[in-house]
Amino acid sequence: MKEYQTLHPHFLHGADYNPDQWLTYPEILAQDPEMMAQAHCNCMSVGIFAWSTLEPAEGQYHFEQLDSIIENLAAKGVKTILATPSAARPRWLAEKYPEVRRVNKSGVREQYNTRHNYCYTSPIYREKTAAIDRLLAQRYGNNPNVILWHISNELGGECHCELCQDAFRSWLKKKYGGDLDKLNHAWWSTFWSHNVTDWDQIHSPMHHGEPDIIMTGLYLDWRNFVTYQTTDFMKMEIDTIKSVCPNIPVTTNLMWLPQNVDYHYLKDYIDVISWDAYPTWHEPDQVRCAVDTAFNHDYFRSLKHKPFLLMESTPSNTNWQAVSKLKRPGMHRLASLQAVAHGSDSVQYFQWRKGRGGSEKFHGAVIDHNGKASGRVFEDVKQVGISLEKLDDICGTKTNAKVALIFDNKNSWALSNASGFINTDKKYMKTCLQHYKSFWKRGVDVDVISTGEELCGYDLVVMPMLYSMDPSQIDRIEDYVAKGGTVVATYATGYVDTTDLCYLGGFPGNQLKDVFGLTADEIDSLYPTDRNSVLWDGKSYPVVDYCELITPTTAQVLGSYGADFYKNMPALLKNSYKAGTAYYVGCRDTGELTDALYGQLLEQLGIQTYALPEGVSVHSREGYLFVENYNDHAVTVELPGIYRNMEIDQVYNGTVSVEPYNIVIVCAQK
Amino acid sequence: MKEYQTLHPHFLHGADYNPDQWLTYPEILAQDPEMMAQAHCNCMSVGIFAWSTLEPAEGQYHFEQLDSIIENLAAKGVKTILATPSAARPRWLAEKYPEVRRVNKSGVREQYNTRHNYCYTSPIYREKTAAIDRLLAQRYGNNPNVILWHISNELGGECHCELCQDAFRSWLKKKYGGDLDKLNHAWWSTFWSHNVTDWDQIHSPMHHGEPDIIMTGLYLDWRNFVTYQTTDFMKMEIDTIKSVCPNIPVTTNLMWLPQNVDYHYLKDYIDVISWDAYPTWHEPDQVRCAVDTAFNHDYFRSLKHKPFLLMESTPSNTNWQAVSKLKRPGMHRLASLQAVAHGSDSVQYFQWRKGRGGSEKFHGAVIDHNGKASGRVFEDVKQVGISLEKLDDICGTKTNAKVALIFDNKNSWALSNASGFINTDKKYMKTCLQHYKSFWKRGVDVDVISTGEELCGYDLVVMPMLYSMDPSQIDRIEDYVAKGGTVVATYATGYVDTTDLCYLGGFPGNQLKDVFGLTADEIDSLYPTDRNSVLWDGKSYPVVDYCELITPTTAQVLGSYGADFYKNMPALLKNSYKAGTAYYVGCRDTGELTDALYGQLLEQLGIQTYALPEGVSVHSREGYLFVENYNDHAVTVELPGIYRNMEIDQVYNGTVSVEPYNIVIVCAQK
Amino acid sequence: MKEYQTLHPHFLHGADYNPDQWLTYPEILAQDPEMMAQAHCNCMSVGIFAWSTLEPAEGQYHFEQLDSIIENLAAKGVKTILATPSAARPRWLAEKYPEVRRVNKSGVREQYNTRHNYCYTSPIYREKTAAIDRLLAQRYGNNPNVILWHISNELGGECHCELCQDAFRSWLKKKYGGDLDKLNHAWWSTFWSHNVTDWDQIHSPMHHGEPDIIMTGLYLDWRNFVTYQTTDFMKMEIDTIKSVCPNIPVTTNLMWLPQNVDYHYLKDYIDVISWDAYPTWHEPDQVRCAVDTAFNHDYFRSLKHKPFLLMESTPSNTNWQAVSKLKRPGMHRLASLQAVAHGSDSVQYFQWRKGRGGSEKFHGAVIDHNGKASGRVFEDVKQVGISLEKLDDICGTKTNAKVALIFDNKNSWALSNASGFINTDKKYMKTCLQHYKSFWKRGVDVDVISTGEELCGYDLVVMPMLYSMDPSQIDRIEDYVAKGGTVVATYATGYVDTTDLCYLGGFPGNQLKDVFGLTADEIDSLYPTDRNSVLWDGKSYPVVDYCELITPTTAQVLGSYGADFYKNMPALLKNSYKAGTAYYVGCRDTGELTDALYGQLLEQLGIQTYALPEGVSVHSREGYLFVENYNDHAVTVELPGIYRNMEIDQVYNGTVSVEPYNIVIVCAQK
Repeated sequence: MKEYQTLHPHFLHGADYNPDQWLTYPEILAQDPEMMAQAHCNCMSVGIFAWSTLEPAEGQYHFEQLDSIIENLAAKGVKTILATPSAARPRWLAEKYPEVRRVNKSGVREQYNTRHNYCYTSPIYREKTAAIDRLLAQRYGNNPNVILWHISNELGGECHCELCQDAFRSWLKKKYGGDLDKLNHAWWSTFWSHNVTDWDQIHSPMHHGEPDIIMTGLYLDWRNFVTYQTTDFMKMEIDTIKSVCPNIPVTTNLMWLPQNVDYHYLKDYIDVISWDAYPTWHEPDQVRCAVDTAFNHDYFRSLKHKPFLLMESTPSNTNWQAVSKLKRPGMHRLASLQAVAHGSDSVQYFQWRKGRGGSEKFHGAVIDHNGKASGRVFEDVKQVGISLEKLDDICGTKTNAKVALIFDNKNSWALSNASGFINTDKKYMKTCLQHYKSFWKRGVDVDVISTGEELCGYDLVVMPMLYSMDPSQIDRIEDYVAKGGTVVATYATGYVDTTDLCYLGGFPGNQLKDVFGLTADEIDSLYPTDRNSVLWDGKSYPVVDYCELITPTTAQVLGSYGADFYKNMPALLKNSYKAGTAYYVGCRDTGELTDALYGQLLEQLGIQTYALPEGVSVHSREGYLFVENYNDHAVTVELPGIYRNMEIDQVYNGTVSVEPYNIVIVCAQK
Repeated sequence: MKEYQTLHPHFLHGADYNPDQWLTYPEILAQDPEMMAQAHCNCMSVGIFAWSTLEPAEGQYHFEQLDSIIENLAAKGVKTILATPSAARPRWLAEKYPEVRRVNKSGVREQYNTRHNYCYTSPIYREKTAAIDRLLAQRYGNNPNVILWHISNELGGECHCELCQDAFRSWLKKKYGGDLDKLNHAWWSTFWSHNVTDWDQIHSPMHHGEPDIIMTGLYLDWRNFVTYQTTDFMKMEIDTIKSVCPNIPVTTNLMWLPQNVDYHYLKDYIDVISWDAYPTWHEPDQVRCAVDTAFNHDYFRSLKHKPFLLMESTPSNTNWQAVSKLKRPGMHRLASLQAVAHGSDSVQYFQWRKGRGGSEKFHGAVIDHNGKASGRVFEDVKQVGISLEKLDDICGTKTNAKVALIFDNKNSWALSNASGFINTDKKYMKTCLQHYKSFWKRGVDVDVISTGEELCGYDLVVMPMLYSMDPSQIDRIEDYVAKGGTVVATYATGYVDTTDLCYLGGFPGNQLKDVFGLTADEIDSLYPTDRNSVLWDGKSYPVVDYCELITPTTAQVLGSYGADFYKNMPALLKNSYKAGTAYYVGCRDTGELTDALYGQLLEQLGIQTYALPEGVSVHSREGYLFVENYNDHAVTVELPGIYRNMEIDQVYNGTVSVEPYNIVIVCAQK
Repeated sequence: MKEYQTLHPHFLHGADYNPDQWLTYPEILAQDPEMMAQAHCNCMSVGIFAWSTLEPAEGQYHFEQLDSIIENLAAKGVKTILATPSAARPRWLAEKYPEVRRVNKSGVREQYNTRHNYCYTSPIYREKTAAIDRLLAQRYGNNPNVILWHISNELGGECHCELCQDAFRSWLKKKYGGDLDKLNHAWWSTFWSHNVTDWDQIHSPMHHGEPDIIMTGLYLDWRNFVTYQTTDFMKMEIDTIKSVCPNIPVTTNLMWLPQNVDYHYLKDYIDVISWDAYPTWHEPDQVRCAVDTAFNHDYFRSLKHKPFLLMESTPSNTNWQAVSKLKRPGMHRLASLQAVAHGSDSVQYFQWRKGRGGSEKFHGAVIDHNGKASGRVFEDVKQVGISLEKLDDICGTKTNAKVALIFDNKNSWALSNASGFINTDKKYMKTCLQHYKSFWKRGVDVDVISTGEELCGYDLVVMPMLYSMDPSQIDRIEDYVAKGGTVVATYATGYVDTTDLCYLGGFPGNQLKDVFGLTADEIDSLYPTDRNSVLWDGKSYPVVDYCELITPTTAQVLGSYGADFYKNMPALLKNSYKAGTAYYVGCRDTGELTDALYGQLLEQLGIQTYALPEGVSVHSREGYLFVENYNDHAVTVELPGIYRNMEIDQVYNGTVSVEPYNIVIVCAQK
């Protein structure tokens, strides 16, 4: 159950609300709460960019309008998620204190510039942020209409100022126990005479300094430091808030993968996970988009293994993607309830009302520039609100996945800067999604987890392209298989540790060779026009991009290459290791090979699957099933058993029909 | 009639003449005037880049050579257009006074660098420019061989130095009456806490500051300021010149659309419009090139609604375009007289003689590196000179267009930085050209005007994608239709005002909803692979890129969408508004739909059209017709009536034959 | 015979050896020499990046480990090529003395940054480099195991600091005899008022200064200065070394063409040419790759017209190219011995053992991360070692080419920055390779020479796109043809001199018009979709990109254009000039036309050719023939005469079979 459920027991439905834009339009401020009620909204995120309104000049605070906004919302039954305003500095602050502005990768101090552009190390920025946060906590910490703190907004980016350089050096000193020899070894800096002989010689990787792809150990430490320092800033805000009102939970809104901040570090300091989902619905490959979105939802749910909040989404188009495509009828309902299907306890939008000017004025919103509580988009939103009210029983329920896919942002950093393989695109994310799709299309719930997590609860663990693993992660995999688990890995597994030092003695590193019963001797990268294949069980599966040359020790060869000088050499292997089983896919396939493998494994492991039409998926939260149709045509889905529709008075016996771009939510009849 | 016609009653024919390059080659200087006479040239633009020759060291002026050059030209009957030399600073000036060099968008003070690189705000640069301008005016203001002042060269670019920042702030203070609230509202800066609380907090949009696409109000004000300041510098030069010799007219040479300086502001301060035309003739789509060039000629003529000067063109290839393609036989004559057909009273080239070194040495010129007054290019030039002499009666005549197309550079700025729609390419220019082509292919003369102009003289006004309109412009459209005019608009019309603030209450803004009898509720952007269609009068027309979802109020639906969820919804509408008629095209078509619409409208409005073969157009200046063939094959053109060829002794009765890449100029026989 | 042959009479076989990476892994250091012996390696390049190990803090030198490394290698029969460590500065040096770090083209002083990043002008860097070089020379100058000095590494790049600006100005003063008028004329700077009136006004071409394509004279002088200053730094190192131990020869390892340093200037200061070859074997066009590599080998051999050293190559893949493709079986032997076929007396690799971390850890090496002296790559290397031992008689033999192709790096600089023609890609390198391929496919040895060399020994001289030629080069061509030589030139020949000043009086410049008996009046550039053809001897050959319009004077027209307005005009011409013959190809063909021409010429000139299958070539060193098969299938090659295989006991009579990706080396039987 979610932390804030004592405060609000229903699905949240609402939007970012930025009334500071409309202070000179009192008729609009007056209409908004009533319109929200009409849209069946019960919650607004307020104050995200309001700093310049709350503190228009240094030390001059004005909370009166915020008071009445929260009151007016409450009068219509709308709760407030209250934001700290640190994401957008007032212009006066940035002009008066240059240190609060970031220094970019070119070494240039940014001007005031767009929003997310503050130095998270700057003592002045921390001081000013803490001051306004404290006042907000004091004023609203006991307000029953405030149910959640929204810390800052979409934390990210990096700063290369001298304050950050010093913080980075301190962080490194701590990490390496003050021992430069350890650091030099981790960074392998003797090569090219790069040895650091004094801590002050260290600089963050900049355009006129160490390139990201050269000293990869430095680069990875920098990414970890940025994660640390970003989180440290967030913790400072949380500590300030909690010191005043310890009982309201906190969140911060996270973003689409992959990210330059490691959420697996940050997650422990917030009470509730929330994130902002902006899929490119109706792109030429709609199924790809659905799978990608599902993967992200699963990742954010798995961060804390409990329900999360969808904090932002658009009721229509975005304005910043390449093509501002409208959602087709049904798509808004489908997209919103897809989030719920994957574990969200909310559907929130950016934003309530389209602004008149600036960058995001054409971003979809509940109320358009015409100012009316009507029209296609408004109706879509209202219907979602009505649906959520009918689905109230589902709120707070958990997802029980038998399959885990390991996606590791740190591995993404390491791979994308590894010189080698195919440098133009390592395709890590794409490969994870390809593996994930095999489960999605069969209606199998998946946890998307990091390398640092406990595996023993899963029947199957999938770890595509897990290039970077520290020895303890290798131990965890070994332990999981030893105790009876089933694991699937691919080419490029376990090549390096977490500062990008290669394992010596053969790949995959350390005891992974025993777990998989093989060594990966060489890896061949293919040109885009090159093709190979794997022959397995009398069938041929296409292969692209990567082919490892493998020497089995104890592994059994299931499939072998169909062409080139490594024709007939092992490509797909299975190894019995202690009580468990380990599969190794030595090449990048186009999806067919791994899909066939997962089909077999799911059956062998007795994991429930569904026979679904193309473009359809099923997800579950405890006893509730969500049947999703991403096609532009209706489908009939076989659903063995008797189910009751949660929204309308209908019972299904064995099959469920789903309209184009629609979702049917059912509950098993006992 | 052109201002300088009292000074020179004939078509001007000549080139930029840069003898300063050849001062150590006396034999070349001696040959030039005689060769010009052989080429039937009667006018040279002199001194454009001569500053370092005229003032080789600070305050040391040397005009002797310029004296003799003007004399020598005159001796061969060649008049001089005399340039002020401000476009290219001497190196000594740029080195001694850093402030005259621009600060670029990255905040870096440029080095001496290439030519157009002076700060138009710098007091020192203004002082030095005025000084040499005054001396030129004093020395040549009474010289009967000097017929026109050529102020600077191809004005453009921008500077971000502190002097310019201060000037920008002053300009803003004036625009907003010293009221920051007005500015903050216009820029919608409360969003993201961007409020300006002190004028000194304002900076021009730079790479490390506000991105062009974020605070679009700031960006548009910056563009308007750059236009203002560029014009102010030009005015300073003109005032200096005119204070000495008020009787010689002035021009400055403008450039291909779209531009970052708004010529509709600048135009009022010069006596004659002139521009530099460099079409990419013989590109894969030759008709596109001809249409684009025609559009530009019409724009420059319409700036003052009287004849203009073609100030630069190439007799052969350029050297700076992607492919340096030679003009096919006939093309030089056709291109030169196309300019005349659209209202030019001159054919001038860059440049007389190819330089030996540097960047433009391979740019086409009348005299090649071989130094001969012969060869294909020289002959082409000479024949144009002979033709112009035969066409003397046409010189000074006007164009009477019944159709106006509104192209607005400011709208181009607004659209290209608007986040939304299809961000990769809004296609404003392309759309204007597509609409324009419908008239070009029927031989209908068109004025290309801005939103600020009087419309009452036109039978038809076309305004594609006029996204940005201020309320007074909306009033003007309303007034035009109310009084009986016919207007055609498209999707994305009247969304925002001139600081990019959206109109509230529905699109198109203000009373345009009544004029067109509809509201545009949503706009769908299509992926490049997406297609839709419009069904109208039993035919289907292809649709790409944009589809608006429209609710008619009083409008009659002519055509509707053929596919997608808005199938059968209105796409093409007609509204009777007071005494006039307003058409609305809700989607971007591939040309066929709007072409069919314009065919009907021209017939209904009784505007003269011609039935022309593909790749052929007809234009007129008072009683003279220009029949242009852009094909590589001969064509026969139906031309009802009896016409006399202006160059050869031939009379046409009903049809005219035109050779490949050629033009026939005729006069109606009374 | 090579300079160092007294020191080492055999082919060198080995690698860069960087033991400084492994100082904390004593077991690895202990294994290496024995493994080298197993791999039949006899030579290692040591110390290239060892500065931080040799001088870990300023003035504190530690040579003990280097002593023992050289000893340990020698104990296993492995000689040492000893490097000066200047290519990679220690971090302490770069931090303490900022002037040793380069200022980049944006005017920014680089941070410590990656390796090659030192100012070659900096007095401090020269002092520190000389100090360690002197100590190395003193300590190892008499060590019989050190056979060659390897000066720095892959010299290149440029610095724009004030020290370099001053050095550039001094260099210019010397070049132009202190006369700014001469400089201004050479740079044609009067155009655009760019006259230099004081030497201090000159700056190197930077991003915020003169663009490379504008003042091309300045740009070309800058490139020549960079060549001069880079060489001057290298000379400083050589002088330091030779002042201590004059008897050990020196080299520096050069790189793939084209380069920004002119090796024809640098070459005179080293004793032996060596270079680093990294072809993209098994790219989609494997023959293109083989031809390109062959061309480069020929260029480096021709620099001193004697055997060179292959100083670096990979036994497997690289890690920094787009696709890290493995070498197919045979390819390593073929690639290694291709170098020998073209005149190399060594096969050396980068590097002996893969590092654990940083950028190049996935670059192919003799010993992989698994640490084993076994496996596919190790075996390939070992077999090359065994082969080289069998080929010992070939070591030191010369190549006798009858054909010369002029490739001039300076011409490459001039063409790539010439505004004109097709600006997106001038295709100079591609055109040279296309001409070269006609000889490669017929087994004709070619010297690839510069414009400054003696031509009289060649039967045929080919000079594609030789746009830039100084008058003395023109004289040399004239003299060669006058005395009976045969030359083939193309469009765009002799347009400009070496500061990019066009020749006046018609192209090609000066007496080339007489040599070729024609003038090139105009040059037409074609769009990528444009096609033309040349008709010659009843056949039609496709033409792309460029067509010159030519007026013959004494030349005979062989072929003429097949289309466009220049249909039937001359395209391929032949001129008898004094005792010789000059051919002129006026257009860019797709290879067929020039190939047919060279086929005829080789026959007429009686130059030996071979009838070879596609993808096969033959090269020779004195009596030895190398038959190379770049196909993935076996071929049978006709080789008139009786030959003995150098490696196995086999004699061929008329034909030789060659396995896929293999090479057969034979010696004519007397």
